Parts: sequence; C-alpha cells; structure tokens
Amino acid sequence: MPELLFPLDSTKSFTEQEIVGHNRWHPDIPAAVTVKPGTSFRAHCREWFDGAIHNDDSAEDILNAPLNNVHTLSGPFHIEGAEPGDLLIVDILDVGPIPQEDSGPLAGQGWGYTGIFAKQNGGGFLTDRFPDAYKAIWDFSGQTTTSRHVPHVKYTGITHPGLMGTAPSAALLAKWNAREGALIATDPNRVPPLALAPELDGAILGSLSGDEFSRVAGEAARTAPPRENGGNQDIKNLTKGTRVFYPVFVPGAKLSFGDLHFSQGDGEITFCGAIEMGGFMDLHVDLIKGGMDTYGVSENAIFMPGNTAPQYSEWIAFSGISVTVDGEQKYLDSDLSYQNACMHAIDYLTKFGYSPEQAYLLLGSAPIEGRLSGVVDIPNSCATVYIPTAIFDFPIAPSASGPFQIDPGMGAPRAQF
Amino acid sequence: MPELLFPLDSTKSFTEQEIVGHNRWHPDIPAAVTVKPGTSFRAHCREWFDGAIHNDDSAEDILNAPLNNVHTLSGPFHIEGAEPGDLLIVDILDVGPIPQEDSGPLAGQGWGYTGIFAKQNGGGFLTDRFPDAYKAIWDFSGQTTTSRHVPHVKYTGITHPGLMGTAPSAALLAKWNAREGALIATDPNRVPPLALAPELDGAILGSLSGDEFSRVAGEAARTAPPRENGGNQDIKNLTKGTRVFYPVFVPGAKLSFGDLHFSQGDGEITFCGAIEMGGFMDLHVDLIKGGMDTYGVSENAIFMPGNTAPQYSEWIAFSGISVTVDGEQKYLDSDLSYQNACMHAIDYLTKFGYSPEQAYLLLGSAPIEGRLSGVVDIPNSCATVYIPTAIFDFPIAPSASGPFQIDPGMGAPRAQF
Amino acid sequence: MPELLFPLDSTKSFTEQEIVGHNRWHPDIPAAVTVKPGTSFRAHCREWFDGAIHNDDSAEDILNAPLNNVHTLSGPFHIEGAEPGDLLIVDILDVGPIPQEDSGPLAGQGWGYTGIFAKQNGGGFLTDRFPDAYKAIWDFSGQTTTSRHVPHVKYTGITHPGLMGTAPSAALLAKWNAREGALIATDPNRVPPLALAPELDGAILGSLSGDEFSRVAGEAARTAPPRENGGNQDIKNLTKGTRVFYPVFVPGAKLSFGDLHFSQGDGEITFCGAIEMGGFMDLHVDLIKGGMDTYGVSENAIFMPGNTAPQYSEWIAFSGISVTVDGEQKYLDSDLSYQNACMHAIDYLTKFGYSPEQAYLLLGSAPIEGRLSGVVDIPNSCATVYIPTAIFDFPIAPSASGPFQIDPGMGAPRAQF
Amino acid sequence: MPELLFPLDSTKSFTEQEIVGHNRWHPDIPAAVTVKPGTSFRAHCREWFDGAIHNDDSAEDILNAPLNNVHTLSGPFHIEGAEPGDLLIVDILDVGPIPQEDSGPLAGQGWGYTGIFAKQNGGGFLTDRFPDAYKAIWDFSGQTTTSRHVPHVKYTGITHPGLMGTAPSAALLAKWNAREGALIATDPNRVPPLALAPELDGAILGSLSGDEFSRVAGEAARTAPPRENGGNQDIKNLTKGTRVFYPVFVPGAKLSFGDLHFSQGDGEITFCGAIEMGGFMDLHVDLIKGGMDTYGVSENAIFMPGNTAPQYSEWIAFSGISVTVDGEQKYLDSDLSYQNACMHAIDYLTKFGYSPEQAYLLLGSAPIEGRLSGVVDIPNSCATVYIPTAIFDFPIAPSASGPFQIDPGMGAPRAQF
Repeated sequence: MPELLFPLDSTKSFTEQEIVGHNRWHPDIPAAVTVKPGTSFRAHCREWFDGAIHNDDSAEDILNAPLNNVHTLSGPFHIEGAEPGDLLIVDILDVGPIPQEDSGPLAGQGWGYTGIFAKQNGGGFLTDRFPDAYKAIWDFSGQTTTSRHVPHVKYTGITHPGLMGTAPSAALLAKWNAREGALIATDPNRVPPLALAPELDGAILGSLSGDEFSRVAGEAARTAPPRENGGNQDIKNLTKGTRVFYPVFVPGAKLSFGDLHFSQGDGEITFCGAIEMGGFMDLHVDLIKGGMDTYGVSENAIFMPGNTAPQYSEWIAFSGISVTVDGEQKYLDSDLSYQNACMHAIDYLTKFGYSPEQAYLLLGSAPIEGRLSGVVDIPNSCATVYIPTAIFDFPIAPSASGPFQIDPGMGAPRAQF
Repeated sequence: MPELLFPLDSTKSFTEQEIVGHNRWHPDIPAAVTVKPGTSFRAHCREWFDGAIHNDDSAEDILNAPLNNVHTLSGPFHIEGAEPGDLLIVDILDVGPIPQEDSGPLAGQGWGYTGIFAKQNGGGFLTDRFPDAYKAIWDFSGQTTTSRHVPHVKYTGITHPGLMGTAPSAALLAKWNAREGALIATDPNRVPPLALAPELDGAILGSLSGDEFSRVAGEAARTAPPRENGGNQDIKNLTKGTRVFYPVFVPGAKLSFGDLHFSQGDGEITFCGAIEMGGFMDLHVDLIKGGMDTYGVSENAIFMPGNTAPQYSEWIAFSGISVTVDGEQKYLDSDLSYQNACMHAIDYLTKFGYSPEQAYLLLGSAPIEGRLSGVVDIPNSCATVYIPTAIFDFPIAPSASGPFQIDPGMGAPRAQF
Repeated sequence: MPELLFPLDSTKSFTEQEIVGHNRWHPDIPAAVTVKPGTSFRAHCREWFDGAIHNDDSAEDILNAPLNNVHTLSGPFHIEGAEPGDLLIVDILDVGPIPQEDSGPLAGQGWGYTGIFAKQNGGGFLTDRFPDAYKAIWDFSGQTTTSRHVPHVKYTGITHPGLMGTAPSAALLAKWNAREGALIATDPNRVPPLALAPELDGAILGSLSGDEFSRVAGEAARTAPPRENGGNQDIKNLTKGTRVFYPVFVPGAKLSFGDLHFSQGDGEITFCGAIEMGGFMDLHVDLIKGGMDTYGVSENAIFMPGNTAPQYSEWIAFSGISVTVDGEQKYLDSDLSYQNACMHAIDYLTKFGYSPEQAYLLLGSAPIEGRLSGVVDIPNSCATVYIPTAIFDFPIAPSASGPFQIDPGMGAPRAQF
Repeated sequence: MPELLFPLDSTKSFTEQEIVGHNRWHPDIPAAVTVKPGTSFRAHCREWFDGAIHNDDSAEDILNAPLNNVHTLSGPFHIEGAEPGDLLIVDILDVGPIPQEDSGPLAGQGWGYTGIFAKQNGGGFLTDRFPDAYKAIWDFSGQTTTSRHVPHVKYTGITHPGLMGTAPSAALLAKWNAREGALIATDPNRVPPLALAPELDGAILGSLSGDEFSRVAGEAARTAPPRENGGNQDIKNLTKGTRVFYPVFVPGAKLSFGDLHFSQGDGEITFCGAIEMGGFMDLHVDLIKGGMDTYGVSENAIFMPGNTAPQYSEWIAFSGISVTVDGEQKYLDSDLSYQNACMHAIDYLTKFGYSPEQAYLLLGSAPIEGRLSGVVDIPNSCATVYIPTAIFDFPIAPSASGPFQIDPGMGAPRAQF
C-alpha cells in the first residue's frame, strides 16, 4: 500500500476530518497535500453525499438528498513542479471500497446505492418517464454485486472514480461562470435547472475560512459537470490500471478526485446511476513538461484504459433514434436516441417481470456499453445500448417460447410525497 | 454457400440487373424474392453509390457524388408467413466484399473508399471544420486494410451492413413523411439539409414502372436515416454472427439491406465514414410470431452481436464536453461532446505528422469505440472516443520524449472547386 | 479474392485434379506453383481423407478410414528467391469451407465431421477408454456449427489449417527417418504404432512418376506429426489474420498446407478431433532473408495469431494430474494430466445426459482451451481444460439443484465390428 | 473487508503467529478456524519460504532455499456440515499482496521474487539448460510490475493462489504415500528427486505437538505436487472472481491455501516461476451436499475462472515438438514439446539483448499462455507458448530490419558456488 496521504475516518463527517477536502472548483482553494512527481500515494474518498443515503428500504433520503453538498472531493494535491501548460500523468494503481471496513452505515462499507432522483431534486436522463425518487441498495462480495431491490442479476463491478481533475485557473473559472450563467439565464426557473451557479450553501473549501471562504465560495464552480479540467466525467472505463493525462492550469496542478463508483454503465443514466460508494484510490503522478502544447491537449482528459475491466462476450442490445415519445422529429440528437435505446431496454426487461424502475436502476449500474453508432444520417442519429447477458440468472434472449418470468421481489423502494 | 437468391453482375449497373433492387422505403415496392422462415440464402449487395466512386487519387467524385441515388438496396425479401406484429429474426451468417473478385473498378473488388463530404453535398459530423471533399482508398488483404492515403496504419475491418430493415406500413410511412417534413419546414434551405424529402430524381423501385412508380416515388421515404424499421443504423457491431430482431410492419416483412462497410468506427463520422464497398450477405431468417408485443419491441432493432469482431486491448482515448468551439455552453448535447472528443483525437494525431483530414478519415473507418460516458451531469455531457493503439506502426502514446514523426505520404486527395 | 493458383474440382478425386498435390514430405517433390514474395494467392484444399468420410449416420467409414492416404496437401509452392536460412512469412488472409458450395458429398460442402478412431486404426488421446469408432457430423451455418449427433451445443468455429509447412532438406529428412525409425524399432508391432515409417501404399507425390516416384516414396516422411518444418501442428490459434514464420530448408521453401479444420479444441484430442473439411486458404507470402539466424529460429513455427478468433468470457474448467487410471504415479507427465482433465470433463458432461462419446466428440471440436498449468511440481504436473459455457443451450454450471437433464437424441453413430 | 479469521503478523515468523498454519497434508492436522457455509472471510497468507528470500541483488538465498519448509499454508478451515462426498464451493472474492504494507523485508510488501532454482536444490522445467540459481526481484505498482533484473518489460499481474485444497482422508493419504514411494524407489538418489517423501525436518502441523506431531509428520504428504484434493495446482487462471469446486474427503473439509503469486505464466516454468509473495485471500465458502457423486467429481478441482484477468490481444507465439535437444525422438511427450517451445522463446528473446536467464525468468512470471496444441499426431505432440507483445517497451515482432537491441541492465543475479 502506498503511503496514505489523505485519510478519512469513517466515523466522522467530511468536514470533521483531520484534512478537509472540498466540493467546489476554484484556483484559490489551498492544496491539502504536496507530492513529488514520480511518487505513489493513497487517498481515501468519501461517498458523494457524505453519508446522507442509508442502507434501508426507503427512498426518502434520495428524495431529500442535499445536492448543494456534493461532491466531497479528496484534495487538492499539489504536484511539485507542475506548471500551466504541462500534462499531469495520473496512473490509477487501484481503486475500491473503504479498505478494511466490510459493514457499517457509510456507503462503501460493503455496500453502495443507486438512486433515481426526483424531477424536482436532480432529475435524470429519463426524468420525464421517471419523475419520482427510487433507491436500490447493492451488496458487495469481492468485486461482484447483488441487490435485494433488483434480484436475479449479479455482475462484476467496473470500479472507477466518477470525478477527477485539476484546478481551473482564474481565467478558466471566469469563462465557466460566464458561459454557464448565460445558459441559466435562458430559463432561470427550469426544473431541473439547466446548470448550477456558484452557491454558498453547502460549500466546503478545505482550509479556507472567513472572508476568503466567502469570496471563493461566491466564485467557485460547482462540481456537477465535466469541464476542461476533467472533473465529473463519469467515464466508466477509468478502471484500475488506467493512465490519465490532465491539462495543468495552475501551479502545482491541484489534483482532486472522488465520487467513487463500484460500478456504472455508460451514461450514468439514473443521475446517481452508478453504485455510489466511499473508498480509496492509489495513484501515481508524473509530469510531461509542456505537454499540452506538445500533444495538442488544451482541455479534457486523454486516457489509456486499464486492461482488467470485467470481460463479457454475449450481449443483448437495443437501438434508438432521435424522435421524441410524442413523435416529433429532432435533428441528429444522440441524447434523445440514447434515451430511446434505454427505454427500449427497459420495456424489454419489464416483459420478464421487472418493474420499469428496477430495469432503469439496473441499466444505470451494470457494466453496459452505450455507443454513438450513427451520428450523420440526417435527421436521425442512432444510439445503441448493450447489456451483458451473463449478468442474469435466467435466459434473457428473445425466443419463440416467450420471456421467462422472474419473481421481482420487494421491488425498488419509492419515496412517498 | 447458401443459395444465391439476389445476384448482382459487377459489370452492370444496379438498374440493369436481372433482379432490380430499390433505394427508397415504401410498402408497395414489390418483393423481389420470397423465402421461407428457417432458410438461409445469399444476396449480393451493390456499394451505395453504384460505382460512382473510383479507385484513384482525386476526390472530384466525392465532391459530385449523386446523393439522390443512394442507397442501392438488395430486396425486398418477402418472408412467408410474416405478419405485422411479428419479430423477424435475421442471422448474419457472413458478410464480406464481392466474392471471387479481387480487383476491378467497383468498390468491393479488393478495395473500398472513405470520403469526407463537402458541406454543400452531404456534409458530415465535423463539416464546419472540414467543409471540403476528400477521399481515401483502402486496399483489402484478407480482413485487414491499409491505405496509400493514410499511411502507417493497418487494422482488421469490423465488417457489417450499414443498412438493413423491413418495409414500413403505409401508416408508418405517412408518419415519417409528416414528422420529417415538419422538421424540414423549420429551415427548408439549410445546407446541409435537416432531412431529405421524397424525391423522384434517382428513385429506383424494383419492378415498379409507370404511374405506380410515380406514385410510390412521390411518397417513398429516403434511405438516409435509421427509423423504426431499422434502416441505415450504421451500427458497426452488426458483424458476422449477429442475430437481429426486426419489427414487422407489412405482410411478408419485406426485408432489404445493403450499404456494406468493410469497416467503420462508432458514428461513421465522416458521413461516408465507413470503408464503403459492395459485397455479399449470407442470412438466415426466422419469425417470432406476435413477438413485437411479447417482447415490447415496437420500433428499432434489437440485436445480439457476433463474437468474432476484431479484438484490441490497448487504447488511447479522448473525451469531450458540450461546449462549442466558440465557447458557448450547450445543455447536455452529446453530439457536440462527441464532436469535441473526435476533434481532440484529430488534433492529437496531427502532432505525429498526419494532416487533419487524414486523421478524420482514419477515425471514420477504423474500429474505434464512441461512448456516451456521461449524459446527466448538467450542463455538460461527456462523450469519449477510443482508438486501438495496435493499428499504428509507430508508438502513439504520449511520452516525455514527444511524438514520433511519421511521413504522411501523398496525403488524402482533395477536390478542387 | 486473390488469384486462384491451386484449384480443386469437388467432383474429382485428389489425384484426378489438374494440379496434383502430395501427401508426403520430401525435398524432391516438384513445386506445383511458383509465386513471388509479396504476393497473395488462393488455394483450394481437399479434406484430409479425400472424401472417404460421408455425411451419414454410420461410423463404418471412420473404422475403415484409409490412413495411408493422408494428408492431401496443396502445394508445394515455390517462393521465388527463398533460400535455406530465410524465414518465410505466411499471412493467413482467410480460411474457410469450400467456397460457393453449400451442399454435396464432400466434407467442406456445408458440413464437416469429427471421428473417434478405433484403437486398431489410428487410436486417439483417450483410446484406452474409447477403443471403438464413432462419428459426428457437424452442419455449418455461417461460422457457427451444430450436430445432430451432439445436440444442445452450438458454437463459433475457430477455423484454421491443421497442417502447413515447408519442405525438409534431404539432411533433415534423413534425420527424421533415423530418429523415428529408432523409436518404431523399440516396439515395432505396437497398436497403435509409435510412429509411421515411409510407406509406398497411398503415396501421392505431385507430378512425380516412375522410378523417381518410387525412390521418393520410399524415403518421404509421413505427414502425421509436426516437425521442424511446421507440418501437422494442429494449432487451433492459426486463425484468419495470423502471421506465421517458417524456417526455410530448401531453395524456394516449397510451402504446402491442408487439413483444414472448421473448428478444433486444444489437443485435437479425438485424433480426428477437429471438424474436418475441405475448403480454401488465401495466403500472402514474404521473406526475411537470413531470418533463421537473425531471430534464432532453427525449427518449428513462430506465429502471431489473428484477432478475430471467437470470444467467450465464461468457462467451466477441469484439472488433471499425472496419475494413471490404475493409480500409478507418473513423473511430470502432462499428457497424462491432460488426459485426466479431459476425462473429468467427459464424466461431468455425462451427468447432464450426454453419452461419454458425445462428450468426447464435443471436446475435440469445440473451441476449448487446454493449458499446461503446472509442469514443475514433482511428481505431478497439472493440466487444465476450459469449455466455454455459452456454447450450451442449458445451464452447465454445478448448482445445488443438480444437473439439468438434456435429451441426447440419436447419439453418435458407432461402427459395428 | 470480510472478517479476518487467519491473521499473520509480518514481523513474526510463521511459527510464532497467534494461529499457526501448516506445511504438510494430513487429515489429523487440527482445524485452525471454523466457518459456516455461506460466509465470507479474510485470511492472510505467508510467502512460501517464510521470508528466506530477500529483496537484494544476490541469488545465494535461492541457492540455499529451505525446500523442506514449504509451503506455509493458512488453515485448515473447518467448514461446518461438510462431509465426505460433498463439493466445497470456494469463491475467490479477492487476492492480493500484504494489505496496508507497501514496503518491508517480506515478499508481498510491495515486491516479490522469481527464482531459477539450482539443479541440486529444486531444479526446474529447463534445469538441464539452466542448472544454476538466479533471482529476479519484481516491484509492484498497483496491479502492474517491473523488475530491475529484467528491464524493458511491464505487465499486469494475473494474481492467484498457487495452492489451495482440502485435507485428504487417511485412506487417500495412504494411497499418495504408496504411489509416490513406489516412484521414488525407481531412482531414489536422483537429483532432482522424482518425488518427495514425508519429512520431519521442517514440518509445521498447526497446533499439534509431542507424539502426535511426530506420528503425523511421519505420515503427512508434502505440499509440492497437486493431487486429488487440489493442492499446488499453480493454475494461473484462479484469479479474483473464480469459483472453485473441491471434493471433500474428511468431515469439515479442512480447506487450506497459500503460495500466493502476484503473477505467473502457464507452467510456472522456473519452478519458483511465479512472482512469489505473501498477502491475503478473501473467500466465500458453500457446499453442494453429495456433489461429488452428483457431478462426477472424484478428484481434482473444477472451476469457473473470474472475468477480470488482464486482457491482451496481440501475441508472439512459439511452438515445440517432442524431440530432445540431442535429437532423440520421444513419443507424444508434451512436457518435452513445451520445453522446446519455451526454449525457442528464450532463444528468440536473447536476440534482442536479454540474457537467457532473463528471458527464462520473464517467461515464468509474465501472463503467458501455454497450450497443448496437438497431442495425437504420432510421434510428436505440439505445444505452444504465447507472450503478449504489449508487455515490452520495444517492438518484439520479427521484421526485415532485424531485432531492436535493448540494454539488458545489470542482469539477473546468479549465485556463486
């Protein structure tokens, strides 16, 4: 085990730790830890809601999840010698649930959760069809997982960090705030919102306090979206063994990360689509001096995925095109196409006995593939979603004899309101 | 070899064949061939432009490609006993270039082509950056391919039909025409167009003639987009060994197919992104009676991919978010995110010596993966593109020593105009 | 299709063809065809028994199979400029059943066969347990296969040539004859024999005739074993896309090949374990001048397997150690260990309803993996065999509820004698 | 983390622990721990030589390695309710190096070793060619490893337990002793020996002491070979996620395990071929009552491998046949064939600059595949070995330009004697 540089005590909240992380992006959040290029280290990560979601059979916690508080990030890590224009090489040596803790009240202690977020509190990819809050608890056994809320399925998690990135420069941050503010201004009261403006409520900024806290909190970007610095990319393929190259925008790079996922399908479609957990990351960092220009990388991460992701060889796949449920023709809208592909998958799974919500929760967390299959054939793009057949304990292919009927069990808990 | 039911003579044009196929969708195009469920058969397929594109070092043919004439489809195949509401099972037993013909003037005779289409004649995924016409010729050697126009790369083709589907019912066709007409009406003079209306010019409708030809041609849908019947889905994963389930909308199903691709990456991003070719398909067909309702399949294809697609284990990947080149923030626009990911890949490849057009042509045709990685993190979706590193004959990973410099050779021909 | 340089007419026997191949190894068998380095060509291949095995429900043909007549090879191909000491690069561009012929009396015309050879006529890996002759016919549908004699299993063939190699020099041939003769001399009447001496009966030597035929036939090596020149290696991984490097022992290399297998598991354990067929090979040849010394290759083939072999991700595996059925301890005998692993697999499969012979025929032909897992742990080596679970249409894993019971159907035909 | 039931303190020797394991097989070694079916637990494992091998640049420790002391096993674990005739299901939930300890003097603390054992102390697969003792130290970084003694190679470990099994019954043990004694008696003074008789020196038998210790030590089987109970199978494919089914021979099953390998190629060819380490195993156990008869499993393990083993897609492969280096023809001897295949690989690698010993150490530890390709083609079997090309940081394929020359660095230390 590499040296633990960012410890978290599972019995304490995120702000009561010895080293306090952050949940906003800003160049002036002080570095929590300093490391040299060429070194390896371990960091603990807190689950994104800091313990607000419980291992029970109610979805009230999902309904009322404190969205202003996310994501509880570990960092910033100052990399010695890193300067704007460099590429920061981050090797994900290992990533997993909370080490040495197999049970307890915190997601990552042997279990995790997936939620369908209510339309008025977060929403999600299919929020018009699924406007209410639901939850599924997933139990870990080694690298496999099962759920009492979504029975008859078991799969190997494709474990990864949902969020990792470097700090923005002041100029880059200003650009984010300007462009996102402009978008919000087009429909400021939309539910769910178009984007999230800086927000003092719930802000955590490491060791900052007083006036400096207030200033930075008023400017700092929310962590929800991915941006030029990487951020909440939710790329399921950032598994153990992956090498990522991040652009460096500030001296020391100020690397931060968190939002660990035991597993997630392409798209993280239920919003909290992944199986959320706390845990640890073992990282190795290095630099390519001047690498942004040398390799033409001005934004977003380049990466080389690891080679131990779970392997499946048989799939059932669904396709969708860019026509709305109401029959309106959209122009090459791959988000809509992927929504349709996912809805087709959900409709299909319900024929075997799952509720639509169980099927949706399954798609969000299992190692499904979501591909942009056709993006040029006007006016319809074509998106496809692939589910590994081996994760089901019953035959899932279409046949002349019709779908096998499962017992869906207790189902996924739904919040009352 | 299964019995050849739809032959094509490579020395004759598509309309001079013994059996004439079609290039529009309409329920009244007469079936060309009748087959029983449970049987296998072979059909030849003509490349989508019927020989208009040549194996040379000019892109004039791409610039002037006759878009009204596409896609030259084989069929319709009437499946005995198929009725609306059934699912048609199509097993792709084999698919490949023109059998027994290794050289000649027709794409599929040992070679194929990829094109960047000019903005005023087709466009493409990145048409604002690449408004001019370019071409690359790819030579086949078994299942691998190389190009004099894109040197230092060699890969195993992920061979598949770009287009396959059943005929629409009259009601479904009317729905298509209504919704696509409504879209076109929002900006009827756009270049490239938002969608393609029915068009008599270039229509081929099998054995129809006279007034019936005129009536059907005036109503028939263009083959460019994928729709409820499958159609031009351009799913690269429909490789040999794949089982596809199509909804049946008309008696006999009226299956048609074509637009074979020697290889294509996710998205077919250069419009004619795949390596286009003529060739053959060996298919086996069967029915699940009443399967549309039994399995909840009302539209688009379900499929189970084959297990002999080319395997790669190391990848260099790029990510993108939904912010325009001009810095405008869009809301969860995965097409834009994928455009950005692809542009990042192109920028990267140019650092090794490729021209941007060479890089673009490479991305369109190589077995790249394009994933909808994050679709819920407002306001930015995250799309990712993965290029197998083993296809290059030089080291492609970032390193401290900087990018290896290749000789880009003659480059991809560009049309003069 | 590359130019067809070695045609075979399916209606004629191997010796009645326009170009006659050979079934012995000798440097003086004249080249049938000459090709330049850097060129591609097609050759037809005859199934190894030249049509003696029929598509029926009897195993009499296996019992009486003419072993002196094998293997009917295509070649020799003289490679211009090849000299002793060079490495001959052979790219397997494609390999498959008899093109354009889907039915007929010859294996490769849409079907193939697997046989258990009788102990007194060939034997096999488990001949003491399976001393009688059995047969299974396999029907091809694209690249998948099924058998009326081994029901409830369907798999993608891992298609390859069982036999390919260069001609030995006179000195090398003399060495073969000396060492194999010495082995035979230790037990000349053994059934099955320890090795096969040169044999005039059944010899086919291309265009040779008269005295020269007699001389060469009296010296020429049988084609049964693999040797320094490659030969009958039966490596299932020589699939389409593979590049093989053969040592060159005579001017022109004199490449020959045949014994095509639609599929075969590691070991080809039933002797005629593969699914035997005639068909075609598309090859590209080139030279590394002086490559034997440059790369330290003095014997046997080096190869780089293709990347389109069938992919499976779930396996049921069995292990074995080097103790005989009678309980005798052998010293690190991996053949015995692999026999035991295979017997364990057979015993297991019979619990589901298969006869032992069906299970044996299945293991010989399906794409199983056979690994030398431990070879140093005195006195027992450990060998393992892996069967892909997805090839069965019923659940094959052990469970508390016990094995699913299949209907074994008519079973595998057994020869009466 | 499941409950830790078998702890080891890295600062103490194996016999000084709170719970003492064992290094012999005997039914009367008392169970160390009792667990119920259906439960998960963690156990620590000591490296097989209990710390005798050091992280340095000398091979004296390999030369003098105390072979009587191996293997230091964790267990026996008594599974409640297990009876002879049952199948014990063991799920390998996780396996890895010593948790939370990244540096230190014990293999598994961030590093491991591979050794070539001297012919007079252990020997190995190629001991006639490599009679002297050599060592390579491998440093771990996440799941990848590199060695200062074998430079220019880096690979993902295929981590697994080399040894796991149930206790033999008294009758089974007697059978082992009888058959192995008979083998030893055929050449009792052979170096290395044919097998290892019971040996008091170095015996560790858990909590046994006094007369009972002496009795049991005098009867107990050595742990070197795999046997009916599983044991030292060295199956590299027993990776995380694997389910193994062991026969139960005694009440409680008495499961034991150890000899963890960070990585190993098929065959573990250098004897201590794997990268040896201490570490941990997380296991889940369950029973199939009466399963041995139900599934026909009387000996050796059945298993279903996990799906997260490292994936590679390009390989360079070598073949070998059963002719000795001196030219003697052996009869279907796959061990000899595999020796030849490995020697060809070694000879090849030396052309790039490696010493033969470096190449041998590489083959033993990297995730190579070793296949029994042909086992019936008298008189030569054909074995093949496959090395993933991506593990090298230089081009490893043969080419016209000849082999790239590496700097082999300090080389692998050799013991002086």
